[in-house]
Amino acid sequence: MSRVRLFIDHPLGAGQAVGLTADQAHYLFGVMRLGQGDRLTVFNGRDGAWSAEIAVASKRGGQVTVLAQTAPQQMPPDLWLLFAPIKKARTDFIVEKATEMGAARIMPVQTEFTNAERIRQDRLQAHAVEAAEQCGGTFVPPVADLVPLRRVLADWPPERRILWGDEARYGPADTLAGLARGPWAVLIGPEGGFSPAEREMLGALDVVTPISLGPRILRADTAAVAALTLFQAHLGDW
Amino acid sequence: MSRVRLFIDHPLGAGQAVGLTADQAHYLFGVMRLGQGDRLTVFNGRDGAWSAEIAVASKRGGQVTVLAQTAPQQMPPDLWLLFAPIKKARTDFIVEKATEMGAARIMPVQTEFTNAERIRQDRLQAHAVEAAEQCGGTFVPPVADLVPLRRVLADWPPERRILWGDEARYGPADTLAGLARGPWAVLIGPEGGFSPAEREMLGALDVVTPISLGPRILRADTAAVAALTLFQAHLGDW
Repeated sequence: MSRVRLFIDHPLGAGQAVGLTADQAHYLFGVMRLGQGDRLTVFNGRDGAWSAEIAVASKRGGQVTVLAQTAPQQMPPDLWLLFAPIKKARTDFIVEKATEMGAARIMPVQTEFTNAERIRQDRLQAHAVEAAEQCGGTFVPPVADLVPLRRVLADWPPERRILWGDEARYGPADTLAGLARGPWAVLIGPEGGFSPAEREMLGALDVVTPISLGPRILRADTAAVAALTLFQAHLGDW
Repeated sequence: MSRVRLFIDHPLGAGQAVGLTADQAHYLFGVMRLGQGDRLTVFNGRDGAWSAEIAVASKRGGQVTVLAQTAPQQMPPDLWLLFAPIKKARTDFIVEKATEMGAARIMPVQTEFTNAERIRQDRLQAHAVEAAEQCGGTFVPPVADLVPLRRVLADWPPERRILWGDEARYGPADTLAGLARGPWAVLIGPEGGFSPAEREMLGALDVVTPISLGPRILRADTAAVAALTLFQAHLGDW
């Protein structure tokens, strides 16, 4: 089976012909040096992984023929990641890491200490696609648009619990062993942490469980991976 | 207390005057906009954190006066991180993350599928210093020079156990709950994984405990944070 994996936003089935965008053609033929007749793996986030063959290769496009399913669709746990966007490169990293770590939905939130006024949702979504291609997954988490934390919490679904990576919490190790499975979200603050008002709001919510991420202050991208690791190891699909 | 933290490789004590390098002066006076009389926190990796005052500020140097200890020296657990260097930016990230996550020693190793022939040890050490300044720690892990994995394992101290993040292992969740405390190392492979010969060598070693990092293939920098999280949560200082 080819190691080249390509996300294609198209229904997949045996014999299906799918056209390639200019970006996909550049990646397959320019970067990966594939050509007509070569094999690759394609997935669309819904139908599992499929083998495919390059039928037409051209500079600005091309076409693949889908052959057979090679892996079933595998969904991550019902886990959202809420994080406050930081500098561009680190925000890209958080999206990449959240995808590898099996977040089902990525939600950038604006906090009082968040620098970002807006995000490039399309760019971040492209990072999630690339990470899914790399990590062997068949699912691409949707990246939501930037929304104020206050509004997210006001509309919060009551059945979904929140694991809050609290940078001010450090003491005896928190155990996740007793927590119930079900829909969850992981919440990571911006560099500089949450404001006192935000901390109070989070502390007052029944659905919120604060957890410590150790005695050193983690950057937001490190904290995201660490909190997702704790979730996946105890409540998720690891 | 000032939020500016500076690593100074010099003994620290009340009243001690310490000269600044050109890089340190650039950071304090150019980037952080501090000047004579301003306060900062200094640490040397051995004597805890100290308040200090800027006595002399100049373009290419300066001097600080150490005032009083503000935090005791805090050592991380006796944990080494062994990893196979990858692309430059991601290698830098691994060193940064390992420092935040509380590794006591960072050891780049050359594996059969490692691209890197050599590393810039001084650059990586500077990244560890910067991460320690950022994360509020008082310890800077030494970054070793690149050594072949085979040689590292041939000279391995028999009392130090190895937690091997094994990308080919996925099944029922591994538990770290039963593992003994003591000296440990975390070993993360290169992208592309370990060679069959290396896998055999690792599998035959008594000190090695393989652990799964889930059903998705993690990039090396993500895997390093995830494996260090599992260690710190179960056997470390979280």
